[in-house]
Amino acid sequence: MSVAPTLIAEIGKHVDSEVEIAGWLYNLRSKGKIHFLQLRDGSGRLQAVAVQGECDPASFAAIGELKMEASLKVRGRVRPEERAPGGYELAVTEVAVVQNPIEDFPIAKKEHGIDFLLENRHLWLRSSLPGAILRVRHEAITSLRNFFNARGFLLVDTPILTGSIGESAGSLFEVPYFDLGTAYLAQTGQLYLEAACAAFGKVYNFGPTFRAEKSKTRRHLTEFWMLEAEAAWMDNEGNLELQEQMIGTLVQDVLSRCGPELKLLERDTAHLAKTEPPFPRLDYGEAIEILRKEGRSIEWGNDLGAEEETVLSSRYDKPLFLTNYPKKAKAFYMKENPANPETVLCADLLAPEGYGEIIGGSQREDDLEKLRARIREEKLPEDSYAWYLELRRFGSVPHSGFGLGLERTVTWLTGIHHIREASPFPRTIARLYP
Amino acid sequence: MSVAPTLIAEIGKHVDSEVEIAGWLYNLRSKGKIHFLQLRDGSGRLQAVAVQGECDPASFAAIGELKMEASLKVRGRVRPEERAPGGYELAVTEVAVVQNPIEDFPIAKKEHGIDFLLENRHLWLRSSLPGAILRVRHEAITSLRNFFNARGFLLVDTPILTGSIGESAGSLFEVPYFDLGTAYLAQTGQLYLEAACAAFGKVYNFGPTFRAEKSKTRRHLTEFWMLEAEAAWMDNEGNLELQEQMIGTLVQDVLSRCGPELKLLERDTAHLAKTEPPFPRLDYGEAIEILRKEGRSIEWGNDLGAEEETVLSSRYDKPLFLTNYPKKAKAFYMKENPANPETVLCADLLAPEGYGEIIGGSQREDDLEKLRARIREEKLPEDSYAWYLELRRFGSVPHSGFGLGLERTVTWLTGIHHIREASPFPRTIARLYP
Repeated sequence: MSVAPTLIAEIGKHVDSEVEIAGWLYNLRSKGKIHFLQLRDGSGRLQAVAVQGECDPASFAAIGELKMEASLKVRGRVRPEERAPGGYELAVTEVAVVQNPIEDFPIAKKEHGIDFLLENRHLWLRSSLPGAILRVRHEAITSLRNFFNARGFLLVDTPILTGSIGESAGSLFEVPYFDLGTAYLAQTGQLYLEAACAAFGKVYNFGPTFRAEKSKTRRHLTEFWMLEAEAAWMDNEGNLELQEQMIGTLVQDVLSRCGPELKLLERDTAHLAKTEPPFPRLDYGEAIEILRKEGRSIEWGNDLGAEEETVLSSRYDKPLFLTNYPKKAKAFYMKENPANPETVLCADLLAPEGYGEIIGGSQREDDLEKLRARIREEKLPEDSYAWYLELRRFGSVPHSGFGLGLERTVTWLTGIHHIREASPFPRTIARLYP
Repeated sequence: MSVAPTLIAEIGKHVDSEVEIAGWLYNLRSKGKIHFLQLRDGSGRLQAVAVQGECDPASFAAIGELKMEASLKVRGRVRPEERAPGGYELAVTEVAVVQNPIEDFPIAKKEHGIDFLLENRHLWLRSSLPGAILRVRHEAITSLRNFFNARGFLLVDTPILTGSIGESAGSLFEVPYFDLGTAYLAQTGQLYLEAACAAFGKVYNFGPTFRAEKSKTRRHLTEFWMLEAEAAWMDNEGNLELQEQMIGTLVQDVLSRCGPELKLLERDTAHLAKTEPPFPRLDYGEAIEILRKEGRSIEWGNDLGAEEETVLSSRYDKPLFLTNYPKKAKAFYMKENPANPETVLCADLLAPEGYGEIIGGSQREDDLEKLRARIREEKLPEDSYAWYLELRRFGSVPHSGFGLGLERTVTWLTGIHHIREASPFPRTIARLYP
């Protein structure tokens, strides 16, 4: 059995030959002397046709007894079939049933509620839409890693268990850690990447990140993957250009590699194809004026919510950089804007079509005294940041970076409604199973 | 400044031209009218020579005041220099000091104790040996991901926050999780990959993994990265072949891409180059006989410790598969060996040269009743495994997989003594900082 069966994806290489497919039955239609078996094996989907008299009689009888999701090995001859999705079908000669379920498969063709589907995520993955989304996710991850590898960025996996704190102390998961007290699950690896970029110049990480926020929106998970990049000698402008190139490449790669998946998801690819650099930029101050003119009661200094983001991004058909936020709305490590010290050299990237923020980035404060003052203003535990402050004492350089939320990005790329479907096994405030 | 300076790695393209290097000073030697500056920028290392009269006078004076790890921009002309490691040096015309430290850099040329170095890991990364190890790590990760992507495995990131339990309940980190009680940091994503392989055929993950073991050995971290692969319809034999191909490719890739790093680390690459499939296989029972003949007091049924592993692996110059362990020494999910039901269809892969276990794998129990009986025998919480058991009710198929410990593998590839140096920011029972 260590000789692999033929993959459905490669069946076109075996036209008019006898092959063995190993997979699962996801649908069965019988019409007198013919069974139409819909098979899937993870590489693709295929119709197999068993005709009484042409198929081995015991196999023909066994097919009639099959339940959905039965596992089986099907032998047959590959033949072209124009009407079939892949262009081929299988004329069945013999079937070996590996396991025929006793019960009905919980996920039927009928509509199920999202809670039921999430509770059965381990089985729901077998459906075509979740599969398409996760293939887009796979290709997005590959594209992003290739992008940074090709540009000389060193991958530096930053720790999940941390003593110091990344962004806001209110949303940290706590873990008792031996005799060292409490560890916190990382919200970001940025501080570590800043250390690494002083060693390696250009670095990135890509791993899981945690937020214990009590947010129940369609944009929040408690566990999600984030790609973060950081480069020494890169200023805020260079940071935005790097992000534009990265997003442009990502969309091109996904469009070229995930055509069938995007079609299945009914994604409007014409809209995605517009994602070519450069991207529009809107200053935070101008954004506030626009929002106020539209009747929103937002004040200069407030952070923007999902609704405000949607109002702004809907004015463009490309991703939008929102730049130079007020200092008090952003994290302590962002560099003061020399042109307006009430603001910082930062940008959030909002996806078009109302998908909201997918990237947050900034130039980092490289001045020791200014950084220390900000840590004190925010009443952060200075001891935990001792090592981080040292980076400004030994060869501080201008440097910038950003973090891209993978699931938010996949939500946008696939055009789905809720972020939870962009994760294989999503974790939310109310879900830890399966 | 968004125009990037010239990278040291690319300086060969600019011979006889004027360039600007942005980087850090890692050594300075002055000899009367000449300063020899050793520069690094993350892409490489370069000697820059400033000669009084040829270099701008203010720059020449400033160089004399520089402390180690000063950040600077150095302008000069590139010239060939046979004695230089990269084959070039820079004839300095001008230097702009970005930041000259007030204090001495904590990490000097002298020997430091490991605790001091780990406490200063954020600065130690700038040294050449840690840099070389992390570059090998980077290339190893790239090689492994490419291997699975090229073979049609879908990347399925499995959750870190889990309700159910992977291997041994005694070594789990606990996280209070909203109203849902306690979550556990994943020790493995295998159970989730088993669900995914019934959907996608061939899958893998690659992410951080956690063990709250109170082990203080040179092979243990509390947080480490693991690559896990799982394939439907793959039996134990196919599993071993897949691992052989993967390890063979990995070693080839690292040898071809990391020559300078392995040289710097004084790695015996002739030994590594022997790592060509097939790898020797030793049955657990035979292993026990060998160990007893060598005077070890081990009994059939015991798991093997690091010392026993070293005795066995030192008999070969390739990685060694230790196969068919006793059921009671291994995890509940391993498939019973039909040829000897007291054992399971599994293999650990031991790296040569005493580096110990780098992979654990097995065929999985696909029989519902046998699996449930094992869960009960081990007194595991059956409710948490309800979804996992369902995989055996709906189209169960033979399937196998394995997990490779990244840091152990990098420890072997680089020939270093202790696993902690294979992680950018290692976490041990006594270390959570920086």
